[in-house]
Amino acid sequence: MLQTFFQEVDNYYDEMVEMRRHLHQHPELSFQEYKTASFIQDFYHKLDIPFQPNVGGNGVVARLNGAQSGKTIALRADFDALPIEDAKQVPYRSTNSGVMHACAHDGHTATLLTVAKILHKYRDQLPGNITFIHQHAEEVAPGGAQPIISDGVLKGVDYVYGTHLWTGTPYGIVQTAPGNFMAAADKFTITIKGSGGHGGMPHQTIDPIVIGSQLVTNLQQIVSRKLDPLATAVLSIGKFHAGNAYNVIPDIAVIEGTVRTFDQELQQLIMAEMEKIIKGTCHSYQAEFIFDYQKGYRPVVNHKEHAQLIIESAQQVDEVEKAEIVAPSMTGEDFAYYLEERPGAFFFTGAQIKDQFVPHHHPMFDFDERAMKIAAKTLISAVMKANQI
Amino acid sequence: MLQTFFQEVDNYYDEMVEMRRHLHQHPELSFQEYKTASFIQDFYHKLDIPFQPNVGGNGVVARLNGAQSGKTIALRADFDALPIEDAKQVPYRSTNSGVMHACAHDGHTATLLTVAKILHKYRDQLPGNITFIHQHAEEVAPGGAQPIISDGVLKGVDYVYGTHLWTGTPYGIVQTAPGNFMAAADKFTITIKGSGGHGGMPHQTIDPIVIGSQLVTNLQQIVSRKLDPLATAVLSIGKFHAGNAYNVIPDIAVIEGTVRTFDQELQQLIMAEMEKIIKGTCHSYQAEFIFDYQKGYRPVVNHKEHAQLIIESAQQVDEVEKAEIVAPSMTGEDFAYYLEERPGAFFFTGAQIKDQFVPHHHPMFDFDERAMKIAAKTLISAVMKANQI
Amino acid sequence: MLQTFFQEVDNYYDEMVEMRRHLHQHPELSFQEYKTASFIQDFYHKLDIPFQPNVGGNGVVARLNGAQSGKTIALRADFDALPIEDAKQVPYRSTNSGVMHACAHDGHTATLLTVAKILHKYRDQLPGNITFIHQHAEEVAPGGAQPIISDGVLKGVDYVYGTHLWTGTPYGIVQTAPGNFMAAADKFTITIKGSGGHGGMPHQTIDPIVIGSQLVTNLQQIVSRKLDPLATAVLSIGKFHAGNAYNVIPDIAVIEGTVRTFDQELQQLIMAEMEKIIKGTCHSYQAEFIFDYQKGYRPVVNHKEHAQLIIESAQQVDEVEKAEIVAPSMTGEDFAYYLEERPGAFFFTGAQIKDQFVPHHHPMFDFDERAMKIAAKTLISAVMKANQI
Amino acid sequence: MLQTFFQEVDNYYDEMVEMRRHLHQHPELSFQEYKTASFIQDFYHKLDIPFQPNVGGNGVVARLNGAQSGKTIALRADFDALPIEDAKQVPYRSTNSGVMHACAHDGHTATLLTVAKILHKYRDQLPGNITFIHQHAEEVAPGGAQPIISDGVLKGVDYVYGTHLWTGTPYGIVQTAPGNFMAAADKFTITIKGSGGHGGMPHQTIDPIVIGSQLVTNLQQIVSRKLDPLATAVLSIGKFHAGNAYNVIPDIAVIEGTVRTFDQELQQLIMAEMEKIIKGTCHSYQAEFIFDYQKGYRPVVNHKEHAQLIIESAQQVDEVEKAEIVAPSMTGEDFAYYLEERPGAFFFTGAQIKDQFVPHHHPMFDFDERAMKIAAKTLISAVMKANQI
Repeated sequence: MLQTFFQEVDNYYDEMVEMRRHLHQHPELSFQEYKTASFIQDFYHKLDIPFQPNVGGNGVVARLNGAQSGKTIALRADFDALPIEDAKQVPYRSTNSGVMHACAHDGHTATLLTVAKILHKYRDQLPGNITFIHQHAEEVAPGGAQPIISDGVLKGVDYVYGTHLWTGTPYGIVQTAPGNFMAAADKFTITIKGSGGHGGMPHQTIDPIVIGSQLVTNLQQIVSRKLDPLATAVLSIGKFHAGNAYNVIPDIAVIEGTVRTFDQELQQLIMAEMEKIIKGTCHSYQAEFIFDYQKGYRPVVNHKEHAQLIIESAQQVDEVEKAEIVAPSMTGEDFAYYLEERPGAFFFTGAQIKDQFVPHHHPMFDFDERAMKIAAKTLISAVMKANQI
Repeated sequence: MLQTFFQEVDNYYDEMVEMRRHLHQHPELSFQEYKTASFIQDFYHKLDIPFQPNVGGNGVVARLNGAQSGKTIALRADFDALPIEDAKQVPYRSTNSGVMHACAHDGHTATLLTVAKILHKYRDQLPGNITFIHQHAEEVAPGGAQPIISDGVLKGVDYVYGTHLWTGTPYGIVQTAPGNFMAAADKFTITIKGSGGHGGMPHQTIDPIVIGSQLVTNLQQIVSRKLDPLATAVLSIGKFHAGNAYNVIPDIAVIEGTVRTFDQELQQLIMAEMEKIIKGTCHSYQAEFIFDYQKGYRPVVNHKEHAQLIIESAQQVDEVEKAEIVAPSMTGEDFAYYLEERPGAFFFTGAQIKDQFVPHHHPMFDFDERAMKIAAKTLISAVMKANQI
Repeated sequence: MLQTFFQEVDNYYDEMVEMRRHLHQHPELSFQEYKTASFIQDFYHKLDIPFQPNVGGNGVVARLNGAQSGKTIALRADFDALPIEDAKQVPYRSTNSGVMHACAHDGHTATLLTVAKILHKYRDQLPGNITFIHQHAEEVAPGGAQPIISDGVLKGVDYVYGTHLWTGTPYGIVQTAPGNFMAAADKFTITIKGSGGHGGMPHQTIDPIVIGSQLVTNLQQIVSRKLDPLATAVLSIGKFHAGNAYNVIPDIAVIEGTVRTFDQELQQLIMAEMEKIIKGTCHSYQAEFIFDYQKGYRPVVNHKEHAQLIIESAQQVDEVEKAEIVAPSMTGEDFAYYLEERPGAFFFTGAQIKDQFVPHHHPMFDFDERAMKIAAKTLISAVMKANQI
Repeated sequence: MLQTFFQEVDNYYDEMVEMRRHLHQHPELSFQEYKTASFIQDFYHKLDIPFQPNVGGNGVVARLNGAQSGKTIALRADFDALPIEDAKQVPYRSTNSGVMHACAHDGHTATLLTVAKILHKYRDQLPGNITFIHQHAEEVAPGGAQPIISDGVLKGVDYVYGTHLWTGTPYGIVQTAPGNFMAAADKFTITIKGSGGHGGMPHQTIDPIVIGSQLVTNLQQIVSRKLDPLATAVLSIGKFHAGNAYNVIPDIAVIEGTVRTFDQELQQLIMAEMEKIIKGTCHSYQAEFIFDYQKGYRPVVNHKEHAQLIIESAQQVDEVEKAEIVAPSMTGEDFAYYLEERPGAFFFTGAQIKDQFVPHHHPMFDFDERAMKIAAKTLISAVMKANQI
């Protein structure tokens, strides 16, 4: 049976690539993924698979009942894009200026649709039921996972699985971890309120750019000095915006960033240290500030048995050279919430283009499309294996 | 005669304020001042004073020939606005979002138009000729002064005068200086080219925000360590823009700022030190950079005799409590170029609202409109006195 | 037998404390521990246990042959002190100004001497032989361990054990780890060569204090930005010395610090990043530099079986509440080299004074002397257990 | 008469050089200048000129009464040295390790002794009286000038003059200024109280070296951002001392420096900004601090008429190429206090070795000894000219 499925994945590979490239050309920002959701709905509509639109927002959930008895298994793919300008020179380059699928969610979607098509084709032999969760808004907290779950999607579901196509991992490798797998991902915004004025008369101003710059430097000390060297945490700044004219010292500077941790005590410590450094730095120069810290997704914690199941499922796929347990990743995922509700596991499908590593969220991001075959086959393999638990 | 003119300035004060407020509500960015130019042209058209549109760009130059023999004197007012969001709550608040007359150019224009109207009314008794230069684009180098001069506007002109309504100076005070009066004002843009990536994986990136922040801090040392404490110079940063998403480390950071000096040797020293610091800071972290330094306006150097003439002219105005020689200002002005071509002087007309100092280029900027009366009277007084040289 | 030994440890406790306090009052810096070595030699001399002085420097090695057949086991204690001014107010405060036993080596020595005395007393029943290694110069690389080993001390030795009295761990707890237990500890010295001068004329100088300060700040980025957040490393600065007069900008600044890692690749990465940052920072301001990086002790890597043996040995001691496997420590130890030559293990004996945590190398450092009992009993227990392997 | 004096200066030049070199070899720190004071006393003793030892401390004051009637004029030379290691390779290198005449006070003393010898030789023709003030402790506030004045030395004195041999000025040039000539020079000490510990466990410490480094960087902003660019002030740090061992994070860091200003308002502003920055920076990281600011010498303000007299006196000296009015210097001098009590002037005697500029307070400091001739001749010339006022 599994070999038949695998053969079908190969058969549908060209269509899967075509879908992925179509989505790549038409990326949509989180919470605004209207056309992408329509695309998904059209796909299920044509296959005559029943689906529910607008689940928890722009989410789409399709349900397939196999003719054989078995478990109900949810498979999840996300479909939103990022506010990055696509810098690649490829025919399938983003046509939406300033928006880009720089995190492979296009590939996740094409993969899951292909899996749905194949399992539907063989629904007479299929054990159990499959819930296909196409989730919007993974990139921006509060994310799509929680409202989708609130809409009752996991009702009756036994296990849940998902994957991320991952350019940090070479093609041919599948990775997961029992327990901690991906970090809690928080967002912060620091608004420094100085007092603007003429660039030639700095002594009449409170200069928020100089203060903000110093703050960015000072915040580096949290990781370098305040954390146990054995602890794992990241504090990164993604935005620094201040000023509109080269010769005008502005009133405010806005700094946005992210904190990544695996445990709540560390998260609290970092918040407290940030507060102190922001206050001390701003008050050194009589600036005021607003510090807004929004806790984001909780960490992705795989269930031990299911992480093992993923490893074994991947090992059945010919293209998989190695399926391995790895150290956790500092990246975050709201897949975390599915795993707080149901047993299951999340895994990385290696998708690095040979000798050409580009990190996720980079303007030159792209991935080895063949990895979608591995992702599809591993998910199908996991579905079959999960029915044997 | 002078008292008649002064009386007329009082008579036309309400109209002058009305014009100023109209302009205040409709500010236009440098080099895009089409409607403002039309407004000025309409004014001269209605008075039947001949004028030339599109001088050196959006400039408008009107010429009035007095019936009496005398000198040809140019008076100049600038009319562009700034990319600042007007934060005042007044009926005449800017209606053009993100654009604001935060440097009193609206007042300069209303003043000069009023002067023109009055002198035109008394043209039969007027000695000599007046050239009214309404200059666009003072805020952004290369500025409007040079192309206006290139268009031959100063041909036949004997002397040139201009004023800036100045909130750094209390109402009732007029200030100028023989020799150095306003600084050379240069613009620089530093583009730091790092390598972006996921906010949770900083070690795979070259983080241009952290590098840029450090650079802003490092540049402070030029003034604090590298300049003779007796020398006068400013290095200010007006813009720091990097990143579009809180969780994505961007590829580049762009920093813009200004350098102010009075002498060329210091300007060269600062450029050289900047180059070294930018290079050293970027190379510390393997980032690349583009350092673009554009020399701006040269310093405003008044002609001694004419600075004295301004002091004496102002002393004839009743509202003027004090007309004084002051230390030079770090601000810049492309009035510099008129003074390189013709004898003359530039001066500040104190315009601070009592007990309410707001610096130029500030979102809350406003000025004491009565200062326009002092400006108009001092300019007229200077015209009359210049005919006696 | 073991219970007899334990009883003797209790019997000799007062003498052990007295020895420790004597040593505490007379600390000596690394490589200058002449009187301490004499004290140890006198002790063995009085017991008539044969010993070898000046082993690998100031080391003292005593050998005890049990009457019963068995393994040859080495036990090691270090005996040098630190250049810290003792800030405690206790009767046994250091009498040597600026030198202090702030790392419990006094306790290690008193413990091992007591163990020797007891085992010697029962030498007729003792299985195998014991080599007591009293090592000088643990605090300063290249350390005493390597020359002691070079002198052939481990010849014929089967296993080697050692402990560190540890205030980071509460009294009653014994800790070790199979594999990585303590970090590689390197030393670096950065000499910044500026150009001094009068404090009132900074522009005639290249100010090494400002450059050095910036460098210290910049170096924080290695840990915060350049290392994988999952990696473990420390870069700390212990000394910053520059200048002799408040009004003279000095020629040079000297910065010393330490780097701690568990793997060589990371060590190389940190060295390379340091080099770039030092070069970039100094060249930003035309300073020259000397960067001297001395690789220190290699990491302490316990042998799995022997880490387990220590846990079991400790569990036999009544005073031990818990014997546990812990995460590795960022501190370093040249015990590393014994473990590269022979199977064995190093462990921490919790020595924190209740509710009064003071870190090692702190001027207020002291430890719960009862921990010496636990250390002695665990070492004796390990000797007995090792004879059963 | 003047030419005779000048000829005698030439005659005694070799002896003057010999005295200077003797003093150069035997420098003494401020307030500890016992041997230097003895040397001076011996000199006057041999000449049989009456002197008073221990004036206001180690000061020596000699008095010479001319046979002719005239003014009483005080000439002052200072004689203390600095805590700098002499790095020159010359026969007259300092023999006192860590102490150096790096500010030419040896030259001042040799000059004034030579002047005394000559004027004494011609005392029969000398108009008026001369008070030779040999002042100790100029380098360290509170300085020797104030206690010397308190001892009544200026009683009966009409005018007071002094000079500084100055390597910032080429040989052959004499410089002074009417009004502000040298700055007020304050001293500050900042003690940062962190909490030390093991270099491998920074998270258990509050690291005063990292905090202090950041503070040094932050303090740069006072000059670069908080002062009117037209204002004149310096903030320099001369000492940064922290830590005794590379692998121990220390408890405290001590930072010392100087602030230079010409007006009290600016001095107050800088003190207030420093307080805020120190507080903000330390509190960012939970460190405590002690900020000790000691106001030093007040500014040297020459009397207009006497500055002019110096210029004219210097112009009579053949070796003087140019005697000029210059901008004030940021360096300080307790000569300030003499000028607050009596009319007079202080001046710089150019002493730069050709093509070999080394700033004052530099380990390589030396000066062109021929400048002592110019200093001596200008002082004698001033004495003669002052008698004509």
